[in-house]
Formats: sequence, C-alpha cells, structure tokens
Amino acid sequence: MEGLEALVALTLVEGLGPVTIRRLVRRFGSPAAALEADRGEIAAVDGIGPLLAARIAEARPRAEARREIERALAAGAAIVPYTDPAYPAPLAEIYDPPVLLYVKGAFAPEDRHAIAVVGARRCSLYGAAQAERLAGQIAAVGMTVASGMARGIDTAAHRGALKARGRTIAVLGSGICRIYPPENRGLAEEIAASGAVISEFPPSMGPQRLNFPLRNRVLSGLSLGVLVVEAAGRSGSLITAAQALEQGRLVFALPGRVDSITSRGTHALLKDGARLVESVEDICAELPYLFPPRAPAAAAGGPAPPRPRLTPEEEAVLAQLGPEERAIDEITASCALPPAAVASALLSLELKHLANQLPGKMFRKPC
Amino acid sequence: MEGLEALVALTLVEGLGPVTIRRLVRRFGSPAAALEADRGEIAAVDGIGPLLAARIAEARPRAEARREIERALAAGAAIVPYTDPAYPAPLAEIYDPPVLLYVKGAFAPEDRHAIAVVGARRCSLYGAAQAERLAGQIAAVGMTVASGMARGIDTAAHRGALKARGRTIAVLGSGICRIYPPENRGLAEEIAASGAVISEFPPSMGPQRLNFPLRNRVLSGLSLGVLVVEAAGRSGSLITAAQALEQGRLVFALPGRVDSITSRGTHALLKDGARLVESVEDICAELPYLFPPRAPAAAAGGPAPPRPRLTPEEEAVLAQLGPEERAIDEITASCALPPAAVASALLSLELKHLANQLPGKMFRKPC
Repeated sequence: MEGLEALVALTLVEGLGPVTIRRLVRRFGSPAAALEADRGEIAAVDGIGPLLAARIAEARPRAEARREIERALAAGAAIVPYTDPAYPAPLAEIYDPPVLLYVKGAFAPEDRHAIAVVGARRCSLYGAAQAERLAGQIAAVGMTVASGMARGIDTAAHRGALKARGRTIAVLGSGICRIYPPENRGLAEEIAASGAVISEFPPSMGPQRLNFPLRNRVLSGLSLGVLVVEAAGRSGSLITAAQALEQGRLVFALPGRVDSITSRGTHALLKDGARLVESVEDICAELPYLFPPRAPAAAAGGPAPPRPRLTPEEEAVLAQLGPEERAIDEITASCALPPAAVASALLSLELKHLANQLPGKMFRKPC
Repeated sequence: MEGLEALVALTLVEGLGPVTIRRLVRRFGSPAAALEADRGEIAAVDGIGPLLAARIAEARPRAEARREIERALAAGAAIVPYTDPAYPAPLAEIYDPPVLLYVKGAFAPEDRHAIAVVGARRCSLYGAAQAERLAGQIAAVGMTVASGMARGIDTAAHRGALKARGRTIAVLGSGICRIYPPENRGLAEEIAASGAVISEFPPSMGPQRLNFPLRNRVLSGLSLGVLVVEAAGRSGSLITAAQALEQGRLVFALPGRVDSITSRGTHALLKDGARLVESVEDICAELPYLFPPRAPAAAAGGPAPPRPRLTPEEEAVLAQLGPEERAIDEITASCALPPAAVASALLSLELKHLANQLPGKMFRKPC
C-alpha cells in the first residue's frame, strides 16, 4: 500500500507521464524511493528538470494520493499497477503503458484476445446496428470487445458484446468515479459486472479533452486490432487507427455508402490498407494463430490437425451435431442451453470449421 | 468489300473464334484466301481439324455473310475490322480481340481513355444513383464511359455520361440489330448519336447466354480500368473484374453497406485489392500519366510543370478565374456556356489542379 500510494502520488504530478515515472522508478528502485529522493538527483533524471522535480517534492505528503485511492476503493475499483500480474500483457508491450489502472470488475484470461471496436459519437443507424452486430460476433467467438463507452458506436459495441453474453472492457477518458457520458452509468455497471471498466486517470478527474488521445492509446494497446465502424473525415477514430498501426496492431474498417459522411473516415482507412470487415470472419482470417484456416483434406496417414479449444457450451452443442443436418431449435431443445448461447456456440463452431450451416438455420458436422 | 465479306463469313462459322481466325488469315494471307484455301491445308492449321475445316468450306458461298452485312448497313452500322485504323487500340492489345466490330455511331480519340462502369442488373437505388454520378464525373474529366447497356447499373452509367454531355460506348451481348433489353432501344439511339453502340456478334443474333462473358472481355479490353458499382456475391461483374486483371486493366469498386446483398461482390473485390472509389478522383489518382498529381511547390528557378491539355470549354471557364473567388453563376454568365458545361469544366479544372472550389459553389485559381 505504501508503494501504491507513492505510485499514485507520482501519477498526480502534473506534466509527469508514464515513461518518465517508469524511468524514475528504475533509477531509484521503487516509487517510494523515487518520491523521497534528493531533489537534485531527481532533476538530473532524463526528462525531469528543476520544475518537475519541485512538483514531485510537493507530492511527498501523499494526502491527495490517499484521497484518490479512497475514492477508487469507495467506488468499488481495484488499483492495478504495471507490476501486477493482472496488468494486461498486450498493454504492457506498448511504448508508454499507464503505470496503473483503476479497474471496476476484473480482467479475464480471454482479454488477451481483445478487439477494440470504435467509431463516431454521431453515428448513423447503420453504424450503430453494425457495431452491435460485429461486437456480438467478436464476443461470440471468445474474444473480448474493448471500447471507449462514448455515445454512438462505442455504446453500441459494448451493448452488442453484453447481449452476446461476451466479455467487454470499457476504457474511460475520465476518472473511474466520473462516468461519462452520464446516461451510460447503468451501462458501466453492467460492463463492470461481467467485464471491466478501466481508467488510468485519477478517479475524480472529469472527461478532459486531452485525455481522449491518451485513452485511445490504451484502447488499441489492450487489443490485437482496432475495428473502426464509422468515422467522419477527420476524427479521433482515425487517430486511434494511426496509433494502432504504430503499436503494431491490426486495423479493420467497416465500409458504408459513399454518400454517408460517417463512412468517409473508414473509406480513407480502407484506401490506406485497413482490412475490410463484413463479419467477424474477416477479423479471424487475420488471426490465423487463434483461428486456424480450414485445413486442406488430410493426406492419408497424416496426423489429424489439433482440435481448437472449446467452451463447455460449444462442447455441448457439438455433441448434438452429426452428419445429418438438424434444425437450430432441435439442437437447442436437446442440449438444454438458452437459445442465444446455442446460436453463439454454433457461430463459433462454424468459425472453427466444426459445424456447417445449411439454408433454413440447419446445422451439421462438416463432411 | 470482298475481304470484309470473307472475314464476316469466317466469323459466322460455328466454333471458330477470333484467335483462330487471325491464325488462318496469317497462314493464308487474307480472309478471302483463308476461306478459299484447300480443306486439307485448313485442317492442318493449329486449332482447326477436319470438322471446322468442313464448316469453313460450307461458308464459301458467303450468302449468309452478305445478309448480315446488309442488315448491319440497313441499321446504320459500320463494320470495323481489326485491321482498320479506327479499331480501338486498347482492345487490339488483348489476347483475343474480336476480328471485327459492328459500330453504330463512331469512335473518337478520347475513347483511348475509357473506364468501364458495370454492375448488377438488379441493383439498389444507391447503386443506380452512384453509377450515374460516377459516370457523369468520368465523362466530365474527358474520359469515355464504357458499359454493357444491361438493366440496372449499366443503364445508369450510360445515362450519367449522357447527362454530363460526355462520351459513352455501349458494348452489346447481342447483334447490333437486336437491342436488348428492348426498353433500351431509345437509349441505344441516344448513345449512338454522340458515342457508339458496338457488337462483335452477327447483327441478327439474339442475346445468348454465352455471349455475355465474351462481351465482358471487350468491355474491359476497351478500357483502362473497370469500375464495379454493385455486384452480388457471384456475378458476371466479378468475372469481368477477373478478366480485367488478366488483361492488365485496373479494377475499381464502390463500397456500400455490408447488409446490402448488391455490395457483397464489390466488397469481395475490395478485399482482393481493388481500388476503393468514392469519386472520380480515386480513379484519376491511379492514372497519373493522364492526371498528374499536384506538383510540389516548384523549386526556385526550376521549370514550370507542363499545363495539361484543356478542352475549349475548360479554356473559356479558366479565363474567368482569378485569385479572388467567384460564384459559379457569375462564371456561367461571363463565359456564355450552358450551366452544365460550366459545372463539368470546373470539376475537370479542379482535378487538373487549375481551379479550387470554396464553400458555396465559389471558385478561384489555386494560390
């Protein structure tokens, strides 16, 4: 707690970013040692100087840090420093990962495979419907949907993942105690209950303009790829996409009508080489180590390809499939799972090439 | 006329294609010599054999050929053999150009720069509107719009070019005397009056299924690139696009909503590397030898870049532009041209970087 307080105190110093905080901790051995170090020695650290050193000295009493920690705990949030094993591994790999995250809810192993679904706040009905549909598909194949909980596309993406009973993570541009926009407070509770709402900002900080680009680097940093659903010509989503490329992440974009302003940004991304997405299969195709492409007909005597790992629901549904096609209703009745779970499992089995869909919602094992 | 009759007679021989006809003509020196050659010698030509040799011998009286020529002439069509200087140069470069074309109307020098605009017969309102808009833009920058005069996208493309007072060529899948679909007879007359309606098929031949893939190779062969506006998942337009790639032509595609069946084919093309088109500028960008990219600020003392060739309308409109912005109505009034011609010229001048558009339909010379 001592060390955590010192780390929080460092994050509250105006003008001190994660790269420099980590440099300080490496130089002095711990956040507490860095905070208490000699001012001259602090000022000598690369990127600090006398002004920042003076501000760091002012933070020594840690009263403000204690208040922020209390606020976070009162709101039910945990604090996950970058040294914690629970800290998301992909995020740790970027140039400037946050030194700590305030987390309502919890991370889960499948968050290792997250796709950020982002887009315009002022989106079209088409965009919102597609964000919800695609997020639902991403969740249904066992990946986590990350988004920013903004109005428009972000909200639709979180809702889509929740409806599919999948994992979703909201990355805030404000403190964990300052849910924004206010109408999403209920959504934040829902997300925290089954996924996670996270922020790197002090719990009491409001949604400041400059926070959003920082938030966006966390969103792409958490994820294997960023899907931009709709974006106007010059917009935050395009900056997120550019940042994602710098972080070595994949960029996906949904096409739309050329007479729709909200597709201008996604069309610009597609011209620049983003992958066109019609369904989650287009995302899976870019992640062959997670979703192996359909194996060519096995040569006689060759070893059978390894079967992908299945969820209990997928196993239950797969057990109901044979060479003869069966209607989805019949499968649902036989395996005693809710219809939505069966539909999810069937989509996921299809993507893993363990089920084939035939016209009329009929399914069977591939021949 | 003697030679033309013999050439037409050869085209009427069932099973004898343009590659083999050209081989015969090269072997025997002329179409007439090929038609009258010894049956054994004909049969010895690569790709012929006794059956085709017998059919060629049957064609010697040329009565059917004379009837087809009379039909073409009665319909006001000229016959342009591949040896004619008027035969389109880009088409002559493909593997299997037609040995002759029936032509209502005439070719023009600007047809050297044609873009095929094609797509689904059963298109959406969006597709039809975009085909018309894009064809109008293509025509307005001085390129020719080629299409197949089918229902749907093709018809909209021809109409768009005509409305922009541009060049358009219809390539038929039936004989020149058998306009199909019948409701497009009036459109065919309009196209022939300012552009050309062409066919490689005997004038009296109806629209046969097998003709359409052949027609499509002519459409792409005539053109620098093929723009697919809308296409279902498996469709003739996709075959045209594949053929265009084999012919070394560019492939362009219009994006649309992923929930629109008629955009499935264009999205498949975009995934395979087709260029995404929102406006004619996206096509011009791929033809830098025709539409040079905006030159970087000229270095002091460097030679001024050459000015692109302008039409008389463009020259007249350009003369009205200065460093101060002027409204389009004012420009129109000053240069005594129809409003549509002024709008066309301004778009074209913009693409050639000789005019800048400002909000409110104001134009000026670039600074």
